[in-house]
Amino acid sequence: MERSNTVFIGRKPVLNYVLACMTLFKSGHGEIVVKARGRSISRAVDVVEVLRNRFIPNAEVVKIEIGTDRIETDDRGPTNVSTIGIHVKV
Amino acid sequence: MERSNTVFIGRKPVLNYVLACMTLFKSGHGEIVVKARGRSISRAVDVVEVLRNRFIPNAEVVKIEIGTDRIETDDRGPTNVSTIGIHVKV
Repeated sequence: MERSNTVFIGRKPVLNYVLACMTLFKSGHGEIVVKARGRSISRAVDVVEVLRNRFIPNAEVVKIEIGTDRIETDDRGPTNVSTIGIHVKV
Repeated sequence: MERSNTVFIGRKPVLNYVLACMTLFKSGHGEIVVKARGRSISRAVDVVEVLRNRFIPNAEVVKIEIGTDRIETDDRGPTNVSTIGIHVKV
C-alpha cells in the first residue's frame, strides 16, 4: 500500500502521533511521511521535533513539501487548505 | 542587516504577510525567509502558498527548515516551541 508509511496528523495529542511514527519505524520502514492540513500543520512539526529530540536522536528530516488542497464544502463552495509533508528517515 | 530578508509570522491576517513578502522582493531581495513559531507555523505555510498561487507564480520554495526553540516562561519554567523557516526565491 502506497500510504502505509504515512502518519496523518489530526487533533489528538502530539505523543499519540509520535508513537505511531515509532511503530512504523519498528515495523521496518526506513522512511516515513508525517502529513497534515490546515491548523494541524503546526502539530505535524511538533510531532517530528519531539520524535527527534526525545525518542530517536538519529532521525533525520530528509524533505519537507508544502502545497495546497482544494476542498469542496457543503455550504461555502470550494476552499483552499495548506498542506505539509515531512519525510523522516532513520 | 542579517534579518532584513525575513518575514516573521504572527497573528495578523495572512494577506498582511503576503504583502510584506512582496515588498521585500520588490526592494531587490532575490530570496526571502518566512519564519514562524508554534501555532503560527500553519499560517506561515498559508502565506507562502497564497504568495505562490495568487501573486508570484514563479516563486519557488528552495528550502524548509524545522527546529525547536527553548523559551523561558515566567510561571512554568522553560518550555519548547517548534519553529519553521521557509526560504522562497524568485
